[in-house]
Amino acid sequence: MTDFFKGIPQIRYEGPSSTNEFAFRHYNPDEVIMGKRMEDHMRFAVAYWHSFAWPGGDPFGGQTFDRPWFGDSMALAKLKADVAFEMFDILNVPFYCFHDADIRPEGATFAESKRALDEVVDYLGEKQSSHKTQLLWGTANMFSHRRWMSGAATNPDPDVYAYAAATVKANMDATLKLGGANYVLWGGREGYETLLNTDLKAEREHAGRFLQQVVEYKHKIGFKGAILIEPKPQEPSKHQYDYDVATVYGFLVQFGLEKEVKVNIEQGHAILAGHSFEHEIALAASLGIFGSIDMNRNDYQSGWDTDQFPNNHAEKALAFYEILRAGGYTTGGTNFDAKIRRQSLDPEDLILAHVGGMDTCARALKAAAALLEDGALENARADRYAGWEKAEAKALLSGSLEDAAAVVTARGLNPEPKSGRQERLENLWNRFI
Amino acid sequence: MTDFFKGIPQIRYEGPSSTNEFAFRHYNPDEVIMGKRMEDHMRFAVAYWHSFAWPGGDPFGGQTFDRPWFGDSMALAKLKADVAFEMFDILNVPFYCFHDADIRPEGATFAESKRALDEVVDYLGEKQSSHKTQLLWGTANMFSHRRWMSGAATNPDPDVYAYAAATVKANMDATLKLGGANYVLWGGREGYETLLNTDLKAEREHAGRFLQQVVEYKHKIGFKGAILIEPKPQEPSKHQYDYDVATVYGFLVQFGLEKEVKVNIEQGHAILAGHSFEHEIALAASLGIFGSIDMNRNDYQSGWDTDQFPNNHAEKALAFYEILRAGGYTTGGTNFDAKIRRQSLDPEDLILAHVGGMDTCARALKAAAALLEDGALENARADRYAGWEKAEAKALLSGSLEDAAAVVTARGLNPEPKSGRQERLENLWNRFI
Amino acid sequence: MTDFFKGIPQIRYEGPSSTNEFAFRHYNPDEVIMGKRMEDHMRFAVAYWHSFAWPGGDPFGGQTFDRPWFGDSMALAKLKADVAFEMFDILNVPFYCFHDADIRPEGATFAESKRALDEVVDYLGEKQSSHKTQLLWGTANMFSHRRWMSGAATNPDPDVYAYAAATVKANMDATLKLGGANYVLWGGREGYETLLNTDLKAEREHAGRFLQQVVEYKHKIGFKGAILIEPKPQEPSKHQYDYDVATVYGFLVQFGLEKEVKVNIEQGHAILAGHSFEHEIALAASLGIFGSIDMNRNDYQSGWDTDQFPNNHAEKALAFYEILRAGGYTTGGTNFDAKIRRQSLDPEDLILAHVGGMDTCARALKAAAALLEDGALENARADRYAGWEKAEAKALLSGSLEDAAAVVTARGLNPEPKSGRQERLENLWNRFI
Amino acid sequence: MTDFFKGIPQIRYEGPSSTNEFAFRHYNPDEVIMGKRMEDHMRFAVAYWHSFAWPGGDPFGGQTFDRPWFGDSMALAKLKADVAFEMFDILNVPFYCFHDADIRPEGATFAESKRALDEVVDYLGEKQSSHKTQLLWGTANMFSHRRWMSGAATNPDPDVYAYAAATVKANMDATLKLGGANYVLWGGREGYETLLNTDLKAEREHAGRFLQQVVEYKHKIGFKGAILIEPKPQEPSKHQYDYDVATVYGFLVQFGLEKEVKVNIEQGHAILAGHSFEHEIALAASLGIFGSIDMNRNDYQSGWDTDQFPNNHAEKALAFYEILRAGGYTTGGTNFDAKIRRQSLDPEDLILAHVGGMDTCARALKAAAALLEDGALENARADRYAGWEKAEAKALLSGSLEDAAAVVTARGLNPEPKSGRQERLENLWNRFI
Repeated sequence: MTDFFKGIPQIRYEGPSSTNEFAFRHYNPDEVIMGKRMEDHMRFAVAYWHSFAWPGGDPFGGQTFDRPWFGDSMALAKLKADVAFEMFDILNVPFYCFHDADIRPEGATFAESKRALDEVVDYLGEKQSSHKTQLLWGTANMFSHRRWMSGAATNPDPDVYAYAAATVKANMDATLKLGGANYVLWGGREGYETLLNTDLKAEREHAGRFLQQVVEYKHKIGFKGAILIEPKPQEPSKHQYDYDVATVYGFLVQFGLEKEVKVNIEQGHAILAGHSFEHEIALAASLGIFGSIDMNRNDYQSGWDTDQFPNNHAEKALAFYEILRAGGYTTGGTNFDAKIRRQSLDPEDLILAHVGGMDTCARALKAAAALLEDGALENARADRYAGWEKAEAKALLSGSLEDAAAVVTARGLNPEPKSGRQERLENLWNRFI
Repeated sequence: MTDFFKGIPQIRYEGPSSTNEFAFRHYNPDEVIMGKRMEDHMRFAVAYWHSFAWPGGDPFGGQTFDRPWFGDSMALAKLKADVAFEMFDILNVPFYCFHDADIRPEGATFAESKRALDEVVDYLGEKQSSHKTQLLWGTANMFSHRRWMSGAATNPDPDVYAYAAATVKANMDATLKLGGANYVLWGGREGYETLLNTDLKAEREHAGRFLQQVVEYKHKIGFKGAILIEPKPQEPSKHQYDYDVATVYGFLVQFGLEKEVKVNIEQGHAILAGHSFEHEIALAASLGIFGSIDMNRNDYQSGWDTDQFPNNHAEKALAFYEILRAGGYTTGGTNFDAKIRRQSLDPEDLILAHVGGMDTCARALKAAAALLEDGALENARADRYAGWEKAEAKALLSGSLEDAAAVVTARGLNPEPKSGRQERLENLWNRFI
Repeated sequence: MTDFFKGIPQIRYEGPSSTNEFAFRHYNPDEVIMGKRMEDHMRFAVAYWHSFAWPGGDPFGGQTFDRPWFGDSMALAKLKADVAFEMFDILNVPFYCFHDADIRPEGATFAESKRALDEVVDYLGEKQSSHKTQLLWGTANMFSHRRWMSGAATNPDPDVYAYAAATVKANMDATLKLGGANYVLWGGREGYETLLNTDLKAEREHAGRFLQQVVEYKHKIGFKGAILIEPKPQEPSKHQYDYDVATVYGFLVQFGLEKEVKVNIEQGHAILAGHSFEHEIALAASLGIFGSIDMNRNDYQSGWDTDQFPNNHAEKALAFYEILRAGGYTTGGTNFDAKIRRQSLDPEDLILAHVGGMDTCARALKAAAALLEDGALENARADRYAGWEKAEAKALLSGSLEDAAAVVTARGLNPEPKSGRQERLENLWNRFI
Repeated sequence: MTDFFKGIPQIRYEGPSSTNEFAFRHYNPDEVIMGKRMEDHMRFAVAYWHSFAWPGGDPFGGQTFDRPWFGDSMALAKLKADVAFEMFDILNVPFYCFHDADIRPEGATFAESKRALDEVVDYLGEKQSSHKTQLLWGTANMFSHRRWMSGAATNPDPDVYAYAAATVKANMDATLKLGGANYVLWGGREGYETLLNTDLKAEREHAGRFLQQVVEYKHKIGFKGAILIEPKPQEPSKHQYDYDVATVYGFLVQFGLEKEVKVNIEQGHAILAGHSFEHEIALAASLGIFGSIDMNRNDYQSGWDTDQFPNNHAEKALAFYEILRAGGYTTGGTNFDAKIRRQSLDPEDLILAHVGGMDTCARALKAAAALLEDGALENARADRYAGWEKAEAKALLSGSLEDAAAVVTARGLNPEPKSGRQERLENLWNRFI
């Protein structure tokens, strides 16, 4: 046992009236909601990078956090893993996620980095075998090192493509070994800074072929988890090819992958693309590509990715409602891709940020489930579209423009609009928040 | 002849040094650029709606323009057409565009509106036969009348779908009759205000089926022009299904229409979706769906569609460069979907706004063509990706992740990044502006 | 009694567990919170314009609402007032607000408009004397008519300035007569579309002098209410001089009016200016110019003023917390500057939108009050700044840079940062939501 | 001589037709524009931080640049200065700017940092005495080190305030010694992350008192340069107190400093605050607080500060037009607060980015000057406001609302709007671009 979290107790459910900072007031893992344990609904995961690898820097300032594990040795990497699993225990989370660069020191060569990765993966495997917390997904950091500055799979230099392929292979192997439920790809540098020096068509095609190779390799090694793409419109690149869910869908279909790959949707990325989080979830679900979520909130007044812990359950309930409507997660989960603020220096801050985030989500889930079970909202939706159940409506779809024109003429159609009742539905919604 | 533009001369090319407000300084229709007359490159079109139907209102104020043709009779509709063709003559534009609602009075019933449309279409046909200006595209206004408030093809009420189908049929017939080069669909109400009352999946499927019907009808009537979708992320709806080019591409592929339908890209819509205009054009071209453009500029500080006339040729040159790289327009053109400001009351303002816009575009085209002919930028781009021409690079794409990993190991790859040279290329660019 | 709201009952408090759409679940006017009745805290007002004058149009579509009082006669104006007071009764609101243009038909001349205003004001006075609902504030619409297209007090034409002055005088007289608690100025056209045709310095000075004249007239006629400026950054103008609270403060000080004029802060306007609502309130309070609020919400994904009814109490609680910290309203109130969606056609929608908005605010107030009474947040804030209570800290402020440098040297200062504890405070906050 | 820029020639003016990358095509220092040498108009400055201290990192990736002077010793600091002056010579710029942290290694204590600063300042003084390039302004970096994470003058900890005061004193002394023309304060951390832990009123008052101390110290030491505040709305803080020019003006007036302090306006910051660059300049000029500019461009699609080199002269001409209208710079200048892109690794990129930026500005200046000398735009503006020159217009301003109302009645005023002629003026503008 390290002493990093010394004095911080295991977090337990104490109910809404608890005033104990170190307790859940809403998240009760064993409570059954719509026939499923809350823990199985939420499938919470901690992100290794924000919690253990981020030094507290921003574009205008450097490290603020003092962490005993910061540095580049294998011993420190193992200390980091020890602390991480202590935190997972304190929070009682079922999952965690990582990039290779979060867990192992960078080597001078690919081989060195790979050896370090293998060693840490073994260490994490031991940890997993003696703790509850398992791997939700693994991924490769192909955006921080300067080699990736012009892209990984979309790099103008084929050697970088090769390096990226080798890197993803290594991380897929690691994820398989650790029993990961998914493998994620986020393409922070898969985009461009300026069209002037970019062959957009070639880059997209390279990205498409790369993703096909990932899927082929998945099948080859028998990885049963899902392959997930994480959309983001920009930042760090000016434009990223995986802009949003709709863009990713078009990309998947273009490369024949829409049955093979799903999306990992992040609230902050949705907002940067001009969408609500619930829109992105609903759209992905309707297209059959909903996979998992990165849970955070962005600041609505800031034009970059602030990755803050969620703290408004009323807002998050809209997202969980769509997740529940879609049938909930299969391989996916609720990963806190959220970082404590740069000024939140204390170990307690790290724990309490997750406690608050988990409670916010739990409260959102309960509200969403209650409304879904009540049925009033779904009934109102069904009523609004009830006309489409009729035979003549179906005939409109199967017929032609001319058929429709004939109907308009024959029946003298002059449709009167009906109220959309938005505010009434918002009131109904609020009854459950 | 009406006297609306009394005293305003025909606009002629006088060259860059002219100080005559009523002359082109850059647009010289017969000047040959890259082997084509400038008029044939630009294919300028005037938008009937902004120039002749918009009263000068905004969300906080009503009509500012006094136009003798405002009103709802057939006589006024014909007067409007007379003035419109007088303006087309003054500007010497080869094309114009319209919605049904711009050119005919609204009837109390579908049949009445249709009769009015037919009568005006005949009148416009006569106009076209005695004037240079022809129809670039027709379209249906399925967003202004209250019947469309909850959508046209995506309306919860199937009767509205039928009405929309009949409306598009009538407009396609009109466009065919007038020899239009394209038929456009912009779905301002094909989206939603709130997910709470929306069946997103059903609505998208109805929109998809509708578009299939449009394509089927096109083939049936032998319309040779292109069918174009015009992407826009929002406004008036909170979310529109045709968000941007990438979204439309995914939608087309989902409904098997990517060979049948192209896009009409608007600068202002691109910006509202978080893209540059040139990005949208380049992406469409790379996907094989580039059709036409709506030329305007948006105010970068305003979060809505300001539809202003273009006045920065340096900015527009980036767009024309991508158009030229894509081989230029086939059926498409440069439609001024731009309105004079609400305070620009005088007939002169209407003429001069177009003169300025045409000159801005002409100057942008010339700069773009010069740079493309020079070749330096394209050579720099080709150099940057030259590695991909090698056999071992091609092998990377045809192989597997494991093959790539073997290459990394065997060759001890440790790729060094190379400068992207963005500022040098921007300087090069500026040599041609 | 008109029959517009036929069948809709008076709205009464039934408590959180009520499932009656036509009941308050949180707003209980007589409940005492922090020593004051909830009605006296909230001082709710209905906006005449959105509820009774807006036809349901947007930039892409016309009227959707059918209201029996739409039209331009005095009889219809009185019918509108009858319906308005019926709604006020149903909602049991203590206040309403209007522009002149909302309540009277526009005349062909100033004198005609003034006569119409006087007649309607008398009618409203009678209404007020027989109903509970009184006037929170009056204002002049100096943005909709084409005469205002280039500004009112900032118009290039002095005749428009004169017309504006006469208009405000008339409206101040009307507000005084009706016992209004405030008089508001919102300058939607007091700004510019382009700097090219604008004398920014002269326009700001004219606006400043105009506001001085308003204050002088207030004192002359003995109006005891507050004069309020309503900041907005843009829309309809590209830039408006009353951009945000900080801008208005600078403007007031420049013209010697910071003791005479306060601000009416709107959530949607705050957001368009890049601020949170609570920021604007806190800043105004800290500068001594907090007056009143226009309560709505904007859509965070839309770049224009959506003026929706508030429906997220967790968000609004932050605003009410700042209002309570500032001591609550004096003359101000909570005015619903919010409109039902264009598709919300039914009379029930209009009522229920207000019911939902009032409940959202009431819930927010209760949460904010509980947290303020608890004291934990204020204690945490005080602790963070406790160092500034010490004599040596005060000496730093009264001394010079050199004195401070001497302290640093003498004491060898090397300050260690302390956690800002943001997430812990957010969790604390959420205990009260 | 170092060999960092080996092979790069001195940049000289060769005129618009030059195809030499390493030449100015528009910037001709000795060319006389409106009676002044172009060099004296532009007063170009290179920013030490972006060009010599920034490693090429962004929030998602680390260092990309290999620079021989990176590191923390005095010897490297001097090497950096050597290279910097070599670049100043190559570019022939008259000015440079720095933060203390750019030029000296950080010490373990204040005293150590101060000693290092003094030593480097002496070294820079020697450099200046043997080179053309002099100091435009100095400033203190009070945002990067973790001690500033919660603010400098606005820190909750008075010890940090003291440290900040000592730091600014040291930098003002350094600036005085080097003959700097201005001293700048940018408050990147003078703001907040969350209102929950912030005493906004106290923080603003501390910032105000701090600025008074700066002004007092300036007078005490006889610094003749200007004190400049640099507005920015946010980033890195969620909200910064120096939001924009209007906000800074209100702040200055509140603390009695509007005659003592001016603003340094940055294009990118203007855009993040929702303004155009030219708006901020025009407003500052109209308020008598225009000082200097930080020249860069932001990407209009990105919501953060991209600090790119300007490359659109048509856009920058609007800014230079306002600078010329304001009489040009006095102590201020055109500082390139611009960084080459993270992928622009080569020394040539650093030089050519500045060459392109200088040419863009020079071209913009020439266009702006030509238009101003032509007079047509100013005449149009004067005509538009000519009514205000009349005695009856002046009487409106000196009189009361009642006087104005009497005029409206007596003269039966019913003002007709006149065209704002925006597009015509835009066309006029473009004649000079």
